[in-house]
Amino acid sequence: MNNPDIKYLFEPESVAVIGVSQEPGKIGYKILENMLYMGYTGKIHPVNPKGGSALGYDFLTSIEEVDGDVDVAVIAIPARFVYDAVVSCAKKKVKMLAIISSGFSEIGNLEEEQRIVNYAKAHGMRILGPNIFGHYSSKVSLNATFGPADIRKGNVAIITQSGALGIAMIGKTAVQNIGLSSIISVGNKTDINEADLLEYLIEQEETKIILMYVEGIQEGERLVKVLKQATKVKPVIVIKSGRSKRGAVAAASHTGSLAGSDKVFDAIMRQCGVLRAESIQEALEWSKFLSHNSVPEGPNGIIITNGGGVGVMATDACEKYDIKLYDDQEKLRETFESVAHGFGSTKNPVDITGEASKADYVKALQEALDDDAIHTVMALYCETAMMNSQELTEMIDEMYGKFHAKGKPITFSVFGGERTEEAITALHAKNVPVYRDVYDGVSCMGALQSIRTVQIAEVGDEVATPIDTDAINKIIDSALADDRTFLLAEEGQGLLNACKLTGPKGGVVHSVNAAVELADEIGYPVVMKVVSRDILHKSDAGGVLLDLDNQEEVIDGYQTIIHSCKANVPNAVIDGIEVVEQIQAGTEVILGARRDANFGTTLMFGLGGIYVEVMKDVAFRAVPLSQTEIRSMIKEIRSYPLLLGVRGEARKDIESIIEALEKVATLIKLVPRITDIEINPMVVYEQGKGARAVDIRVLLSDDKEGSIS
Amino acid sequence: MNNPDIKYLFEPESVAVIGVSQEPGKIGYKILENMLYMGYTGKIHPVNPKGGSALGYDFLTSIEEVDGDVDVAVIAIPARFVYDAVVSCAKKKVKMLAIISSGFSEIGNLEEEQRIVNYAKAHGMRILGPNIFGHYSSKVSLNATFGPADIRKGNVAIITQSGALGIAMIGKTAVQNIGLSSIISVGNKTDINEADLLEYLIEQEETKIILMYVEGIQEGERLVKVLKQATKVKPVIVIKSGRSKRGAVAAASHTGSLAGSDKVFDAIMRQCGVLRAESIQEALEWSKFLSHNSVPEGPNGIIITNGGGVGVMATDACEKYDIKLYDDQEKLRETFESVAHGFGSTKNPVDITGEASKADYVKALQEALDDDAIHTVMALYCETAMMNSQELTEMIDEMYGKFHAKGKPITFSVFGGERTEEAITALHAKNVPVYRDVYDGVSCMGALQSIRTVQIAEVGDEVATPIDTDAINKIIDSALADDRTFLLAEEGQGLLNACKLTGPKGGVVHSVNAAVELADEIGYPVVMKVVSRDILHKSDAGGVLLDLDNQEEVIDGYQTIIHSCKANVPNAVIDGIEVVEQIQAGTEVILGARRDANFGTTLMFGLGGIYVEVMKDVAFRAVPLSQTEIRSMIKEIRSYPLLLGVRGEARKDIESIIEALEKVATLIKLVPRITDIEINPMVVYEQGKGARAVDIRVLLSDDKEGSIS
Repeated sequence: MNNPDIKYLFEPESVAVIGVSQEPGKIGYKILENMLYMGYTGKIHPVNPKGGSALGYDFLTSIEEVDGDVDVAVIAIPARFVYDAVVSCAKKKVKMLAIISSGFSEIGNLEEEQRIVNYAKAHGMRILGPNIFGHYSSKVSLNATFGPADIRKGNVAIITQSGALGIAMIGKTAVQNIGLSSIISVGNKTDINEADLLEYLIEQEETKIILMYVEGIQEGERLVKVLKQATKVKPVIVIKSGRSKRGAVAAASHTGSLAGSDKVFDAIMRQCGVLRAESIQEALEWSKFLSHNSVPEGPNGIIITNGGGVGVMATDACEKYDIKLYDDQEKLRETFESVAHGFGSTKNPVDITGEASKADYVKALQEALDDDAIHTVMALYCETAMMNSQELTEMIDEMYGKFHAKGKPITFSVFGGERTEEAITALHAKNVPVYRDVYDGVSCMGALQSIRTVQIAEVGDEVATPIDTDAINKIIDSALADDRTFLLAEEGQGLLNACKLTGPKGGVVHSVNAAVELADEIGYPVVMKVVSRDILHKSDAGGVLLDLDNQEEVIDGYQTIIHSCKANVPNAVIDGIEVVEQIQAGTEVILGARRDANFGTTLMFGLGGIYVEVMKDVAFRAVPLSQTEIRSMIKEIRSYPLLLGVRGEARKDIESIIEALEKVATLIKLVPRITDIEINPMVVYEQGKGARAVDIRVLLSDDKEGSIS
Repeated sequence: MNNPDIKYLFEPESVAVIGVSQEPGKIGYKILENMLYMGYTGKIHPVNPKGGSALGYDFLTSIEEVDGDVDVAVIAIPARFVYDAVVSCAKKKVKMLAIISSGFSEIGNLEEEQRIVNYAKAHGMRILGPNIFGHYSSKVSLNATFGPADIRKGNVAIITQSGALGIAMIGKTAVQNIGLSSIISVGNKTDINEADLLEYLIEQEETKIILMYVEGIQEGERLVKVLKQATKVKPVIVIKSGRSKRGAVAAASHTGSLAGSDKVFDAIMRQCGVLRAESIQEALEWSKFLSHNSVPEGPNGIIITNGGGVGVMATDACEKYDIKLYDDQEKLRETFESVAHGFGSTKNPVDITGEASKADYVKALQEALDDDAIHTVMALYCETAMMNSQELTEMIDEMYGKFHAKGKPITFSVFGGERTEEAITALHAKNVPVYRDVYDGVSCMGALQSIRTVQIAEVGDEVATPIDTDAINKIIDSALADDRTFLLAEEGQGLLNACKLTGPKGGVVHSVNAAVELADEIGYPVVMKVVSRDILHKSDAGGVLLDLDNQEEVIDGYQTIIHSCKANVPNAVIDGIEVVEQIQAGTEVILGARRDANFGTTLMFGLGGIYVEVMKDVAFRAVPLSQTEIRSMIKEIRSYPLLLGVRGEARKDIESIIEALEKVATLIKLVPRITDIEINPMVVYEQGKGARAVDIRVLLSDDKEGSIS
C-alpha cells in the first residue's frame, strides 16, 4: 500500500489538540476529556493561544512549543484561524491534521479549504476533514472526537460521511453490543477519503469488518480498486442514502445520464463485493453477525422449525437473500428421521412440530451440526408450552456455543411473549445471534453467504485488447483542433476501425468494375452512395441506392448514381462511389462507457431501443474489469434470454458482444480524452455470425487529463 | 351480511368444552383454565364422558345434559370421537362448533372431515377448524384457546391459518403492547374461512384493524368481495408466506399458469386495498401504528431532522413507501425559516441541525402541526449532547400528544445510545410511535397513507358489457357433446363474434363475384382459403392464398384455389371459399382470464411475445372489476409506455384494449363453464383504429357449476 501516512491517524504516538478549552461543554474541552477517558496511550499536547489549563494539563500557547514530534494535530478552532494553525503545524512537521472545524466547502467556502489543503500537501501533511466530529482508534485507545466519551472496543471500523449519524452510531453500536476498532468522520474529504482509509484498514488486524456510510464518492476508479482488494479479505458494508432522488433522475432521463444513477452505484458495489445495506439497522445487524461468525464452508443452508408457517416464511427469505437451501431429500430424511416425528417433516424446512421440547431442538440441531453436507443453519422457534424461558435460553446458548466452536454459522429467529423476550435479552448480552423476525436472521445469514461468494470468486485478469491508440489520438487531435468535443460520423467509423470493431464493411471505388469486385467481397445486398463534397443531400440528388442484390444491380446502380447526380447537381465533382454492406436485421444492443468525476469509469450494456428506453433494462460495471465480469454484466439484464434465443430463435453471437465490450472498456481506459462512448445500435447476429457496430457517438474532453469538473 | 351465525363465535352466551380434563397440562384443562382466567362473561359447560371435576366445575358426561342453550361447543377430543360428539351437539342444537382436534385433512384424512362437515351443515351447525388452537373474543372475554392465558385486550383482530404462529402471536402482541379484539385460528377451514369472519369483523365495533396470516385462499371471488368492503371501513393487513415457491413456479412456467402465482395474489390484495406485509414484524408495527392513528387529511408528508444523512435516508424511504413529500418551497421557507437557523435547511427534509435543542424541536414540530398544508410528519433525531434522555422523552411525548389530539399523524425515528434507548422504552410503554430506524417509521406512515388512498378511491361500478350468452352456450354444448373441453378455432371465432370482439373480418363465399364483393367490403389485402371437410391440409392442397391486393388478384385467386384443390384432392367437395382480412402489423397484446378454485376469477393483461414470456411483464386483477380497475391494470405493466407511443410512434388504441378486457371479464363471469380464455395475440392499432383479436384459446369445464377440483 502506498499510503504510509494514514497509519499516523490510527496509531499516533502523540496528538496535539489545537483549540483545547478550559470550559466543560466546549468542543475543545470535550475532545481532551474523551482522550483521557478512553486512556489514549500516546502523548497529549493541548494547545490554546490564550494558555490556560484543564483536566490536569497546562495548555501550550503554540504547537511549536511541543517538546518532541507531533503525529496528529486535532484542530478545533474557528474556520478563519485554521490556515494559520496549519502553517504552525507545518513548522512543527506534524504528519496528520484532523480538522474538526466547519465553515468550509460545505457552506460554499471552497477557496479557503483549497488554500489549506494546498498548503498542507506542499508541506507533506495529510488532512482528515474539515467539518468532522473527529476520529477514534482502538489500537491506541484514542477517542479524538467530541461525541460520546465511552466507545465500545471491538472489530468493526466505521467510516462516516455524516457527522450527526456518526456520533449517534457510537451510542447505537454500544447499545447493540457492537464493538468498534475505529470510527472515522471524513467530513468534506478535502484530502483523505474512503480509499485512503480502506488501504490502511485492509491490513489492520484489529479490524474484521468495515462499515461505511457514504453520501457521494470521489476518485471512483481508485475506490473500486481498493474495495475489490478489501472485500477479498474482510467484509465491507456500505450504507448510501440518496437512492430515490438519483433513481428518479435516472428514470426520467435517457441512457447517457443513467450512468450517474444510484443503479450504477449499486452495480459497482456489487461488482466490488461490497454488501449494500438498505437501512442503518440492517447494516448494524450484519456488522454484528459478521464480526462474530466466520464464513461457512459451503452454500447449503437448512431451516429447522417448530412451526410450518414460519418455515415457509424463512424459505421466502432465503430466496430474497440468495441462500441455497439444501435439498438432498434422501440425506435429509436420514439425518432428521429421528427428530421429525409425528406430523413433522424431514424436508427442508425441517419441521420438528409444536411438540418439540428442548431435547428435541438439541437433537435436531446436533444432527445438523454433525452433517458435513449442511453448511449453515437457520433455527426458528414459535413460543409453545414445551420450553420455558430458561430452557429456551440454555438450548440456544448451548447449541450456539457448539456451532461456533465448529465454525458452522447458525441463526435463531424466535417469536413469542415475555418468556421469549427474556431469552432474547439474555442471549443478546452474550452476542448470540438471536432475532425477533425470520427475515432478520436470514438476512444476516445471506450477508455471510455473500461474503463467502465474494471471497471464493475467481474474477480473472483485467481485459486489455489491442487497439490502435495512435490512430485514435490523431482522430481526437483533429476533432479538438476543429473545436469540437464530439466526433463526426466518419471519425467515429475511424475509431471503430482503430479498435477493430466491426462496422458495416465497405469502401470507396472509382469504377464499375471495382464496385462489382467490392460488392462481391462484401456480399449482397449492398448500399451505394455518391462521395462528393459538392452534394450535401445525397438522397435528394439520387446519390443513394439501397438493396442492391447482385452484380447487375451494382453495375446499373453505379451508372444510375452518376447520371442522377450529374443531372441534379451539374457542377458537382464526384470523388467516387461508396459501396457498403447493407446491415441485416438482427438483435440490437447498446454498448456504452463513460468517464465520470465521481464514479470513475463505467461500462454499460443493454438491449437496444425500448429495452433500454422503456424497460430501463441495463447493466453497469466499473472499468477496468475482467471478462468474467463482462459476462456477468451481460447475463444480468432481464432480457438476457433474448440473446440465448427464445421462441425458436437461435442463440445470438454473445461472444461478439463480449469482444466489443472488451474493446470499449479498453478504449475508455487507454484514451483519457474520451469521456463518453455509445455504440447504438450494434446489431448482433446468430452465434458464429458476428455483429456490426452501426453507429457510434463519442464525446471528448479537451483537458489532457481527461478529468471533468 | 348473510352470516348471522358467525356472531355466536364472537359473542356466545354459553360455551361447552367437550373433552375438558382434570389434569393440568392437558389441552382440555388449559382451555377451561384460560376461559376462567380471562373471565368469560357467559356460561361454561365442561363436558367429559368420564365425568370428573376441575377448577370448581363438575363435568357433565354429555353435552345433552346441559341445562339451556349452547352457542359454541369447543371440541378437544381425539379425531376418531369427534363425529359422535358432533352428533350430540346437533341433538342439543348447538350453533357453532370449534373443533380443536387435529388428525383430519391436514394428514390426508379428508373423508372423516367431510363426513363431519356434511353432518354439521345438514343440522344447521357451522364449524371453525378442525386443527386449531381455538379462538379469543374480547367482546365476551372469551379465551377458548390452549395458548397463553393472558391476552391483551385491544382493537386488532387476528385471523391465522398457522397454529404455531398464532399462539406465538398472542405473546408477541402483548410484548409489543398491541391489544387484540380477537384472535381466530382457522386451521383446515373446512367450513368457516376468512370471508365468513371478515363479514362479521367489518361491522364489529371492537375491531379497528384486521390482521390475517394466510397460507392459501379459498372461495377467492367471495373473499375479494368481502375484502373490498372491509378495506373501505378498516385497515386489513395480510401476511402470506410462500412468495418464493410460487414465484419460482411462475417464473418457470408459461402465461396460463402464471395465474396461480404469488404475483396474482399480490395483485388481488392490492386491488382489494389490503396492505401486504413482508414480515411478521412489519405487520405488527403497522397494526400497532394504524390502531392508534387515524388517516391523515391529505397526502403531504414532511421530514424534520437534526441530521442531513438520516434526512436523505427518510426521503429514500418515502419513495419506497409511496409517501408524497410536500414541496412548496416558498411555503416551507415561510413556515420553517425561524427554526432552520445557521447551516440548516427549510427544504423538505427540514434540517434543524445538530445544534437543535428540545425547544427547537418543539418549535419546528409546532410549526408543522399548525400548517394545514402539511398532513403528516416524520421526525428524526440523531443523539446529540443537546438533549438528555428526559428531555427527549418529554419532547416526543408532548408533541405526540398534541399531534394526536389534532388527528395529524406523526412518527419519530431516533438513533443513539443509552439515553435514546431509555426514551424509546418509556415512550413505547405509552404507545408513542417511536422507532429505531428511519425505514420503520416511514413504513408505518406509508401504511397509513395507503389506507387513506384506499378509503377515498372511487372504484366505480363493475363492468358488464352485453354478450350473447345463448350463442356462447350453444357453442359450448356442441364442444362438450363432442367430448372436448376446449374450443376449435371456428368455435373460438364464434365466441368472439358472440362477444362482439373484433376478429379478422371475413366470410365464406360461393362465387367469384361474391368473393370480390366481400373483399371490397373487407378492404385489401385479403387472404383466401378453401372450405372443405375433405381437405385437411389446405396449404398443401394449394387452398390458401395470402396478400391478395386487388379485385384482379381475388378473381385469379378464386380460380387458382378451385383448380389447385381439384387437381390435388380430386374427389373433394368444396363448400366454398373463405375470404378474410389479412391482419396488419401492430402492437401485440395478450388478454386472459381464468377461473381458479382458490383465487376465484382473474383477468390478465400484458404485451405479447417476449414481454410476457421473457420479461414477465403482466398485470392481474380479480373479476368482477370496474373500468377504473381495468385502466389501472393496463397502466401497471412496465411496457405501458409502448401503448402510449414511444420513439415517435403514435398512441395505440387503448380504448379497444379496455373494451376487450371488459368483454373477457364479462364472458368468464357470465359463462361458468369457461375456465380459461386467452386471446393471443390481439393486434392493437393506432388510436381510433381499433384492434383485432387474432387468436383465441378457450378451455371448458364439463361441470355445470364451472368448479374445478
